[in-house]
Amino acid sequence: MTGREGGAPLEPIGNAPVVILVRPQLADNIGACARAMANGGLFHLRLVAPRDGWPQEKAWRNSSGADRILDCLTLHDTVADAVADLHHVFATCPRPRHMVKPVLTARGAASELRSIGERGLRAGLLFGPERAGLDNDDMAQADALIRYPLNPAFMSLNLAQAVMVMAYEWWTAAEATPPRALMTNESRIATKGELENFLRHLVDQLDACGFLRNLPKRPGMVRNIRHLFQRGEVTEQELRTLHGVVTELAIGRRQRGRLEPDTVAADETT
Amino acid sequence: MTGREGGAPLEPIGNAPVVILVRPQLADNIGACARAMANGGLFHLRLVAPRDGWPQEKAWRNSSGADRILDCLTLHDTVADAVADLHHVFATCPRPRHMVKPVLTARGAASELRSIGERGLRAGLLFGPERAGLDNDDMAQADALIRYPLNPAFMSLNLAQAVMVMAYEWWTAAEATPPRALMTNESRIATKGELENFLRHLVDQLDACGFLRNLPKRPGMVRNIRHLFQRGEVTEQELRTLHGVVTELAIGRRQRGRLEPDTVAADETT
Repeated sequence: MTGREGGAPLEPIGNAPVVILVRPQLADNIGACARAMANGGLFHLRLVAPRDGWPQEKAWRNSSGADRILDCLTLHDTVADAVADLHHVFATCPRPRHMVKPVLTARGAASELRSIGERGLRAGLLFGPERAGLDNDDMAQADALIRYPLNPAFMSLNLAQAVMVMAYEWWTAAEATPPRALMTNESRIATKGELENFLRHLVDQLDACGFLRNLPKRPGMVRNIRHLFQRGEVTEQELRTLHGVVTELAIGRRQRGRLEPDTVAADETT
Repeated sequence: MTGREGGAPLEPIGNAPVVILVRPQLADNIGACARAMANGGLFHLRLVAPRDGWPQEKAWRNSSGADRILDCLTLHDTVADAVADLHHVFATCPRPRHMVKPVLTARGAASELRSIGERGLRAGLLFGPERAGLDNDDMAQADALIRYPLNPAFMSLNLAQAVMVMAYEWWTAAEATPPRALMTNESRIATKGELENFLRHLVDQLDACGFLRNLPKRPGMVRNIRHLFQRGEVTEQELRTLHGVVTELAIGRRQRGRLEPDTVAADETT
């Protein structure tokens, strides 16, 4: 919940498809659909014959601030009326029935919807009522069906979840975020030279404390430590912290060494 | 709602990640999360310190038959306890904060989770409480953060929606469904020879009725009709229907032609 009066300042983004809820039953779900649409950058909502009439206060309460989507929606008596000004219509259908029709995945549909939008054409997405889904006449109004790849052992998908998946794919289809990136905030990735500098400091201190006293094993041990620190990206700030850690441990060791040398020696072997 | 006593016969599928809800507030949402997990083929659920205690009847009522996921979940006092047996932990976080940490997209995370599973390792996904999300200590327990690419103007994502997107990406990461395919049911795509056969039938009848009587324009008109029928895949059954349509229209025209030739001639020009 945003708690903001009047909701978030949402606006249409680009040539996004229209969401058409066909005979939706629950106002709660209409609100949740508006929220999911906002998450994915969709704005235009049409309702075909909502079961309990419209408007319903509950929808606004359940939209978490996606009020403007609900404020701007249009009401229609029939699917034919709701799609009359659109160039392409896709119908979501978890269990495609006896018909000859192209079937798209959600991702495939998102990609085609982007192309349609770029050509300046308007597309619509039909979502059926909660209990029964779209009927055969509804689907005959669509160019293609959209079927999400999901667990065939459990296909019961909440209406707002169905809208969420499609809105998410719509948004993602125009996203260039790398699948993995190190977030470094005000710091930056350390250079290999900075890492080498730290490793030299560490190895010097390990030589000084005797950890590397077994000379035949020393090269392998140093290499293993190097492998560990090379494994992931390290920031320059983190290297400075590590320098401090090594320095302070070494000072502590020397101070303790003066006080209780036997204990320190025992610790080393554990 | 499945209405089935005891819910759907769900079972763990492969080496799927564990979903860990950290300090969830609403039992309704826990049920909706179980439903979303079932949609995406996830099974193992852990709750860390649910606000209103556990079990809560409401969760079962809101899971639409994903009862077994709720029946089998485990309760934990701390995040550390909930992740102790896991090899990798990813934390969902819509607004990454001041920290140095890899950030994955949902799709990037799904791909890495598949690799982790294939290596026989166990992974977990942390989801924070509805209102505040994960805190900094929770996130410090994770290898990486997951941030969904979504509309930055409206980031308020319902908990079950967040689980849905991740479950959907998990399932999709192992899917090979083509992005577009023609569903033909018991029929099959027509061959070019069958299409040619129909076009010949159509053109013969158009010649017979005089539609193509303008000889200089005839080749272009035939080509345009051909372009229209070549545009999409047609099934063998649909071609048989079209043969019937042409035959019946032609018979009707001939019969009407015998009765009211002038009317028919007038119709042709409209």
